[in-house]
Amino acid sequence: MRIPNHIGIIPDGNRRWAVNKGLTKEKGYASGLNPGLILFHLCKELGVKELTFYGFTTDNTKRPTVQRIAFTKACIDAVEMLSKEDAELLVVGNSKSPMFPSELLPYTTRKTFGKGGIKVNFLVNYGWEWDLGDLVNNKSSNRRDITKCLKSNDISRVDLIIRWGGRRRLSGFLPVQSIYSDFYVVDDYWPDFNKAHFFQALNWYNTQDITLGG
Amino acid sequence: MRIPNHIGIIPDGNRRWAVNKGLTKEKGYASGLNPGLILFHLCKELGVKELTFYGFTTDNTKRPTVQRIAFTKACIDAVEMLSKEDAELLVVGNSKSPMFPSELLPYTTRKTFGKGGIKVNFLVNYGWEWDLGDLVNNKSSNRRDITKCLKSNDISRVDLIIRWGGRRRLSGFLPVQSIYSDFYVVDDYWPDFNKAHFFQALNWYNTQDITLGG
Repeated sequence: MRIPNHIGIIPDGNRRWAVNKGLTKEKGYASGLNPGLILFHLCKELGVKELTFYGFTTDNTKRPTVQRIAFTKACIDAVEMLSKEDAELLVVGNSKSPMFPSELLPYTTRKTFGKGGIKVNFLVNYGWEWDLGDLVNNKSSNRRDITKCLKSNDISRVDLIIRWGGRRRLSGFLPVQSIYSDFYVVDDYWPDFNKAHFFQALNWYNTQDITLGG
Repeated sequence: MRIPNHIGIIPDGNRRWAVNKGLTKEKGYASGLNPGLILFHLCKELGVKELTFYGFTTDNTKRPTVQRIAFTKACIDAVEMLSKEDAELLVVGNSKSPMFPSELLPYTTRKTFGKGGIKVNFLVNYGWEWDLGDLVNNKSSNRRDITKCLKSNDISRVDLIIRWGGRRRLSGFLPVQSIYSDFYVVDDYWPDFNKAHFFQALNWYNTQDITLGG
């Protein structure tokens, strides 16, 4: 079976999951932590080299404060949880904004925890316009030069993006690294994560003909 | 019914369609012209304001010459065919390269044909790196400034992308304009286009909650 080198995760549907449970929307985020840990271990076992989680975006910060506080806390907790595992962690996002949690500032350069071995990236207060904003330093239309000028330049091309929650859109997730990504959508909400979702995505990916536009 | 303002079309599967018919791969492209015309008329009737066809990319030009000649001819024929309709046509792509057909040079600024009324864009010898390459002139991380610096700046945000041929990836299609696009995939090959595909995509789009990341 062909295992993707780099998997992007869009863990959507936390708020809809909470509402379905009769909870207020912000109560959905904490239930996304355990799925992330299970997924991380599956990726390690399978030899995935890099994993990127879509934490929250500059768009998301316009939501009600109680939600913003809840998803920010979930991101902090997720990073701190994975810092107890064997992983090379990096948080990518606009850390100059007050919306960026100070607890995550130490992670804005890649750090190895335990034995390392798998790169895990978190997009936190990430904005596509923020990511592309440094192309001012770019001098060419060469792909390598463009990707070097991205603020997210330490994140490689994504092979497979899996989005939970049924929506079939990228919502600003790494527009350059996702140009050739295969895109798999799970209808269930992220807190209802099940290992079977992940294996279904990998089985589907395994049948795809990778051409990189050729 | 909520009709998207701007629909992007990725008309994939021409080569696989030809092979299935016992033809050589390059024979598939000419059969993509009529579907394009039918789709154009459907969009006009429904009040779609802008339509973008993915013609060919700088990646595609690395394919065997006989294929390159065939898909280039199909693009020329498609543009000339629509120039006999009521439409505002624009061809976007790297026109400084020898891969760009000289027949389409007159269309590289938007021109009104007949009574105009719907914008139709063709991406011809388009490359995402070419499109982003002018961000060197960008001075900010402001969304409006970034989109202004795109070479494709006369193409607006895409609401719905429909891809024929079963692949669930963007393959470099307008990375900035497709950031919030809903993405619908038709398994049938483009030459097997059927009006029902299009209406299924619109019905699906009608049920989507548009948040623009908010």
